[in-house]
Amino acid sequence: MRVHAYAAPGPSEPLVPTIIERRDVGPNDVLIEIRYAGVCHSDIHTVRGDWGPQPYPLVPGHEIVGIVTQAGSEVTRHQVGDRVGVGCMVNSCRDCVNCRNGDQQYCLAGMVPTYAGVDRDGTITQGGYATHIVVDADFVLSVPEGIDFAAAAPLLCAGITTYSPLRHWNAGPGKNIAIVGLGGLGHLAVKIAHALGTEVTVLSQSLKKQEDGLRLGADHYHATSDPDTFPQLAGQFDLIINTVSAPINLDAYLRLLAVDGTLVNVGAPAEPLTLNVFTLIDARRSYAGSLIGGIHETQEMLNFCAEHHISADIELISADKINHAYDRVLASDVRYRFVIDTTTLD
Amino acid sequence: MRVHAYAAPGPSEPLVPTIIERRDVGPNDVLIEIRYAGVCHSDIHTVRGDWGPQPYPLVPGHEIVGIVTQAGSEVTRHQVGDRVGVGCMVNSCRDCVNCRNGDQQYCLAGMVPTYAGVDRDGTITQGGYATHIVVDADFVLSVPEGIDFAAAAPLLCAGITTYSPLRHWNAGPGKNIAIVGLGGLGHLAVKIAHALGTEVTVLSQSLKKQEDGLRLGADHYHATSDPDTFPQLAGQFDLIINTVSAPINLDAYLRLLAVDGTLVNVGAPAEPLTLNVFTLIDARRSYAGSLIGGIHETQEMLNFCAEHHISADIELISADKINHAYDRVLASDVRYRFVIDTTTLD
Repeated sequence: MRVHAYAAPGPSEPLVPTIIERRDVGPNDVLIEIRYAGVCHSDIHTVRGDWGPQPYPLVPGHEIVGIVTQAGSEVTRHQVGDRVGVGCMVNSCRDCVNCRNGDQQYCLAGMVPTYAGVDRDGTITQGGYATHIVVDADFVLSVPEGIDFAAAAPLLCAGITTYSPLRHWNAGPGKNIAIVGLGGLGHLAVKIAHALGTEVTVLSQSLKKQEDGLRLGADHYHATSDPDTFPQLAGQFDLIINTVSAPINLDAYLRLLAVDGTLVNVGAPAEPLTLNVFTLIDARRSYAGSLIGGIHETQEMLNFCAEHHISADIELISADKINHAYDRVLASDVRYRFVIDTTTLD
Repeated sequence: MRVHAYAAPGPSEPLVPTIIERRDVGPNDVLIEIRYAGVCHSDIHTVRGDWGPQPYPLVPGHEIVGIVTQAGSEVTRHQVGDRVGVGCMVNSCRDCVNCRNGDQQYCLAGMVPTYAGVDRDGTITQGGYATHIVVDADFVLSVPEGIDFAAAAPLLCAGITTYSPLRHWNAGPGKNIAIVGLGGLGHLAVKIAHALGTEVTVLSQSLKKQEDGLRLGADHYHATSDPDTFPQLAGQFDLIINTVSAPINLDAYLRLLAVDGTLVNVGAPAEPLTLNVFTLIDARRSYAGSLIGGIHETQEMLNFCAEHHISADIELISADKINHAYDRVLASDVRYRFVIDTTTLD
């Protein structure tokens, strides 16, 4: 099946319209007519080669929602007409201890990413900036009614990436949590943390988005460029979710943690970071990382978001605006996620 | 009260015999006739100024056991004749959230270290290389019968420093734990981890102490100088306790952790360490630090050690051998802790 898509021809070229091949629908596959695809910062990092060489032409996109138009003979959990989503992975080994525990994102054989990965059949995966995709039904999520469909797309990456560490490190009533960065991930982190009943502080470079942050559910908002912020908030937080992938002064952020607090990076700079180990020792602090979430947990997140009326704040664009959107993402000029209307692809 | 002690006159001079003043026994104090004092690596770091400038003359020693010879009028938990111990701290604010939670080592006002600290009365604390010490009864532990008294001394620092993170991060049956370094802390970590019923691996620079390690309770022993060790053990451990305070290749050790595993430093180099954040992210790993343990937990550790017949492997020395012992500690030439017979001080 040949479908319309947008692909990066190389690391330094703009994305262009193209036609790609999707595999035949296997017995456990579903064919999805994609309706919306979010533009994730990692799409840009990947196509531009920031994280290493890539197979080109490359169709990015791992925040995908659409409608099932065909289901394989063995598929039971999805039917033609269902609203479904696909996130950052489309397969895993299913046999290792992590897959068996539902942590497919940590598959020991390596999960298969939605684009630029080698699928189990040896083909290179191509992502969601396309009109259709064929995905193993076990990696397809149900998008509950009650969430705006376009605004649901970013939940598949930005939503689960922040929901998973918030749940894993027990965000909830009585906890004091900070979110570093109010971008695509950060704005969903604030909404989810607030819905979990926890006290939420945004730590952003400036106060430019303060009004937004408070509207989204933050209780407090501080500028990290203000020299008073770090001494003022020292030792306050049980959990800090760092959504910024630029390098940060780790010791300064770690010192904002109370005893037994954890700083979790969900993004990462390519450069190594340095820290003074005494900053960890002197309050039994932890520095951790977290990668998206498992399939079951992603479904749980979607259900949680539907129940709490959470979706992304988006700017809907047509396909011909993708390159312009990339420039604006890099300039932090989006509140808070671009979503491509994929009906404009053909 | 004037008592015999051994003090460092300055950062680059050997320790010399001296006489120091101990305060009068207050209503909540006990006077302890010290019998044994362990030689901890941090004594050496401190007196030599590795961790910053110190008040001299400085009497080190925070692995203290002795006999109560006087108890203040309000002391109920210790009586004259009791076997007691004093560890790394002799006071704290008792009022902050951490003190109230029993984590006096993380006192927000700063716990008072057993030596080279400023006590609540403004005096500089002097440690256990002395014949007597006066300590607030709330910071005095009971040393159960059944532990050799000299071999119990190192439990007050090396013991609790390793026991606390093993318990905090749930070492026990079904867990796979590595101990980095087989020195004063490491050898007790192996004994305690084994007694907790966990699988224990020692990671040491060479196989020189392998026989000891297995005798102490390790199930496996690997040399970190062997290039096969790191790939062979990748992703194996739930918890790694790093007892080595020299800089390590953090990413290499972190990659030995399974999903959700934690690397805990109980010592630290003065230099900052670097790590690649992706090493944390790709298996939701944590890097943490831990500082000794609370008073209640220290008593629990002593009781646990008595129950499991755990004490340090020691080399008993007279006071005139302290400087020689320091040289041997720095050369890793001790199995596994020097303990000073403090009756040789006067």
